[in-house]
Amino acid sequence: MSLKNDRFLKALMREAVDVTPVWMMRQAGRYLPEYRATRKQAGNFLNLCQSPELACEVTLQPLRRYAFDAAILFSDILTIPDAMGRGLYFEEGEGPRFKKVIRTAEDVEQLPEIKAAEDLSYVMDAVSLIRKELNGSVPLIGFSGSPWTLATYMIEGGGSKDFRIAKEFMYNNPEAMHLLLDKLAAAVTDYLNSQIKAGAQAIQIFDTWGGILTTSHYRSYSLAYMQKIISNLIREADGRVVPVILFTKNGGLWLESIAESGTNAVGLDWTIEIGQARERIGNSCALQGNMDPSILYASPAAIRDEVGNILESYGAGNGHVFNLGHGITPQVNPDHVSAFVDAVHELSPQYHA
Amino acid sequence: MSLKNDRFLKALMREAVDVTPVWMMRQAGRYLPEYRATRKQAGNFLNLCQSPELACEVTLQPLRRYAFDAAILFSDILTIPDAMGRGLYFEEGEGPRFKKVIRTAEDVEQLPEIKAAEDLSYVMDAVSLIRKELNGSVPLIGFSGSPWTLATYMIEGGGSKDFRIAKEFMYNNPEAMHLLLDKLAAAVTDYLNSQIKAGAQAIQIFDTWGGILTTSHYRSYSLAYMQKIISNLIREADGRVVPVILFTKNGGLWLESIAESGTNAVGLDWTIEIGQARERIGNSCALQGNMDPSILYASPAAIRDEVGNILESYGAGNGHVFNLGHGITPQVNPDHVSAFVDAVHELSPQYHA
Repeated sequence: MSLKNDRFLKALMREAVDVTPVWMMRQAGRYLPEYRATRKQAGNFLNLCQSPELACEVTLQPLRRYAFDAAILFSDILTIPDAMGRGLYFEEGEGPRFKKVIRTAEDVEQLPEIKAAEDLSYVMDAVSLIRKELNGSVPLIGFSGSPWTLATYMIEGGGSKDFRIAKEFMYNNPEAMHLLLDKLAAAVTDYLNSQIKAGAQAIQIFDTWGGILTTSHYRSYSLAYMQKIISNLIREADGRVVPVILFTKNGGLWLESIAESGTNAVGLDWTIEIGQARERIGNSCALQGNMDPSILYASPAAIRDEVGNILESYGAGNGHVFNLGHGITPQVNPDHVSAFVDAVHELSPQYHA
Repeated sequence: MSLKNDRFLKALMREAVDVTPVWMMRQAGRYLPEYRATRKQAGNFLNLCQSPELACEVTLQPLRRYAFDAAILFSDILTIPDAMGRGLYFEEGEGPRFKKVIRTAEDVEQLPEIKAAEDLSYVMDAVSLIRKELNGSVPLIGFSGSPWTLATYMIEGGGSKDFRIAKEFMYNNPEAMHLLLDKLAAAVTDYLNSQIKAGAQAIQIFDTWGGILTTSHYRSYSLAYMQKIISNLIREADGRVVPVILFTKNGGLWLESIAESGTNAVGLDWTIEIGQARERIGNSCALQGNMDPSILYASPAAIRDEVGNILESYGAGNGHVFNLGHGITPQVNPDHVSAFVDAVHELSPQYHA
């Protein structure tokens, strides 16, 4: 089945496109009333992730409303630790939590290996089903959290303001931390390759918490493991390259290192000017980003202006996938998302002439 | 009265010193049992800030234990909005809150001017008393939150994860936001000048939340107002320059602009390598920082190693004030602070030979 809209994949490979492709982190999410309805039907968030039919449904919902150039698998970043027996759960109004936390080297040693195709078969079933339902309209992105990001949650037992426990573990048990990250890197590699085999056409690695590290610890505890994953990914499927996007939130200081990781594209948060990022890494990678998600609370006219600013900052030429600098938040008016997506498509042709 | 230890002031002016001076953000804080005892005696946090005697006592406590090269006024960054009638309060285990929030242009227009010397006389009384009690042992740092940082709390009504309301206000009411920041800049200027008149010998501006902005919004909504403040500060007292330190958390991308603000020193969080920061801004400013506060949870030997790494990264020469990259957290073992301070003094002479 041929892909009707391959702008997203082309832009990631720095090939010519007619308009700048756009998708949105957390595009299947709580800002959409139809998402909230499906989530209610599922009973809770985990049921929603674990039902291939419902995960497929919420993945497709934003594509029915908006002209996004890619779909992204609906899932949680913490499926891997859950499959490793950590007991993921969600309390209403709180973030994710684990029943069993990692606090010692023994905890790390005892962590079981997983086989993603079996232990996370519900994810692969969702991927296959979404591909079937997309029917070649746009490509499907698979994803995983980075080893460091997964490790912080597994050690803290949930989210954290200062990641004190995770950092304490890293500083006091560097060998155990590296073993944990090594195990997670193997699991993430297997997980992403299984997603690619099931139909994912591009991969994004979410390094949500790499940006809380010092420069040298970022390199050794986060980037090194993402690099290892990338070098072991299946890089071709259906006769096309499966491009990789690496997104480290608050990673603006480290763009040059990230660009050398083997990734095809670097995801940017909104704190850096995309034009400056392009100057710094030259033509080595595509760039994805980077509008402040909060601008979606402004008027449609202000949103359009900001889209224009970012397109102008990136400038003419290939290699830009438009996105937010982080996930859309639940209180955004869905009409503002139309203003955003339409502005990208309407204002960008001049940069691809 | 002559200053017995002026390393800190000299380093901020990029003058030669014998060893690298060190102090610690939040050095008067909950990690110290004597602080917790005084806070208990005060009844609550606001009483502690508003009693010059108790504020003086907790300011001096860390200096009795550790060889810090500077004292910093104990106070809260939200005293100005409180004096403007916003009703600051603290709930146990929560951050600061305001009873009256700013949500409209009218709210901004109605915000009263303050006269710091009268409306915040308890702060000036604390400064005078601390100076008297310090008796020339080390210099005293005065401080304020940045206008942008104060504005976020005043609009949100407290801390926030994504500052949605503050950003929404900024994007939808840019004129009102600029008026608010202008009023706050005037108040901060008056507040800091009053502290200098009362005895503060150096000034730090805490821009805790500037780092959540885009590059262009950081310049126009945060840095521009800090620059205005700096240009209106009293810059000499007791026959010496009163140096200014500007600290934007997550401001590593913008060091060059910060260094051009008129500040004497740039405060760094831990995400940037201090040697790279020095390369980027050359010899235009001193640098303050930048050890990850979480390293204080590691062993004394690991703390000493990291101090050594940072000293080596900065390298030989003048212009380095050692500090953490952010405030010390309550759970740190006080003995680890000794390891930190002693390491700075013991390992740094080679860089000042």
